[in-house]
Amino acid sequence: MTKTIAFVVYPGLTILDLIGPLQVLSQLSSFAPEYEVVTVAASSEPAPTDTPLSIVASRTFAEVPDPWAIVVPGGLEPTLRAMADETLLGYLRNPAIELATSVCTGSLLLGAAGLLEGRRATTHWMFRSKLSRFGATPVAERWVEDGPVITAAGVAAGIDMALHLAERLTDAATAQTLQLLIEYDPQPPHGPIDWDSVDYAAWASVPEASVKSALADHPALLERLL
Amino acid sequence: MTKTIAFVVYPGLTILDLIGPLQVLSQLSSFAPEYEVVTVAASSEPAPTDTPLSIVASRTFAEVPDPWAIVVPGGLEPTLRAMADETLLGYLRNPAIELATSVCTGSLLLGAAGLLEGRRATTHWMFRSKLSRFGATPVAERWVEDGPVITAAGVAAGIDMALHLAERLTDAATAQTLQLLIEYDPQPPHGPIDWDSVDYAAWASVPEASVKSALADHPALLERLL
Repeated sequence: MTKTIAFVVYPGLTILDLIGPLQVLSQLSSFAPEYEVVTVAASSEPAPTDTPLSIVASRTFAEVPDPWAIVVPGGLEPTLRAMADETLLGYLRNPAIELATSVCTGSLLLGAAGLLEGRRATTHWMFRSKLSRFGATPVAERWVEDGPVITAAGVAAGIDMALHLAERLTDAATAQTLQLLIEYDPQPPHGPIDWDSVDYAAWASVPEASVKSALADHPALLERLL
Repeated sequence: MTKTIAFVVYPGLTILDLIGPLQVLSQLSSFAPEYEVVTVAASSEPAPTDTPLSIVASRTFAEVPDPWAIVVPGGLEPTLRAMADETLLGYLRNPAIELATSVCTGSLLLGAAGLLEGRRATTHWMFRSKLSRFGATPVAERWVEDGPVITAAGVAAGIDMALHLAERLTDAATAQTLQLLIEYDPQPPHGPIDWDSVDYAAWASVPEASVKSALADHPALLERLL
């Protein structure tokens, strides 16, 4: 039986959150034909992203009512606003979904859908502490697997999470082949992030300001997140 | 004066080739307002990609006739076919372009446009030896800068190249801030690619078969690349 992995598209998402895992997993069916990868959205109209590029999902929510797994990308204000989108949250809450995954602040959408209650989870470093507002235990890891929920850290972490997921769904050799094909042999010019040098205080106003701006018309969510 | 960085979209491209550098550089103007990032395509119709997602560029070639820089993504057969697309090649050949960059087999398009003659360059590892057919010297590096041309290795290498480019256009601190914002702190589950363990012979038929299939109707290009 086909297991459909649905990548969830909504307006304004951070595009690399979506594309990192989509690029990794789109070749999965060449190695494990039982998996089918689709992108799904409320409509088939082009959706804006956080970059000068719009995207069109391959299917609508109605056309893929019962995915086996979902991948939920994040973003900044548009993602916070999506926490009040009952059509989107309803799609995420479908009990038929056996595996719910997210990248970056996509985990806030999982949280808003009630899927993080009592679970360990992660998100973009700027928003990590907010996960507790949804009953989750925030964890500073690249990705966190807790039962049927896998959450990844910010943006680029979706690539690492997807390679882990590919291995879980197949085996290590297949995941490493997928890594080879996309030449994921990272060489950031100045090496990995030096977390000890990050000026967290200087960034602290960003999540607060974006929550206030995005959720001004949704007092219950605003209070929950501030 | 505004310097426009145009990400070139064409049907069937490998989506992470485009999105890796687009995600990095789309925030550049927040730090260096003289740069403007756009995506450009021959038409404003949705273009298919190598994944179940279509994309719509923000502008047409006609709307951005003289970009300051271009970023050319690669792909498999659709990219090889694009080597015969004179509209696309004409756009790349514009002498107004001061900086030509590519990701993955996007460098084959730069080569077909005559931009790699006498230059050091790189591409996806499977296609690296093909660069010599365009008068280039193939180099096995993550990215290669030779005068006004920067080429990146396969797919995910576009992220590293874009961070290098961001630093070149601003400074190291800005590039590292962009890296922090997209949380590019790579942790491939099994570490980087172990190139010594790659079975190159097993993959050797892939570029040959794709060249033959994609360029069957273009004998001159076919002969050049086989």
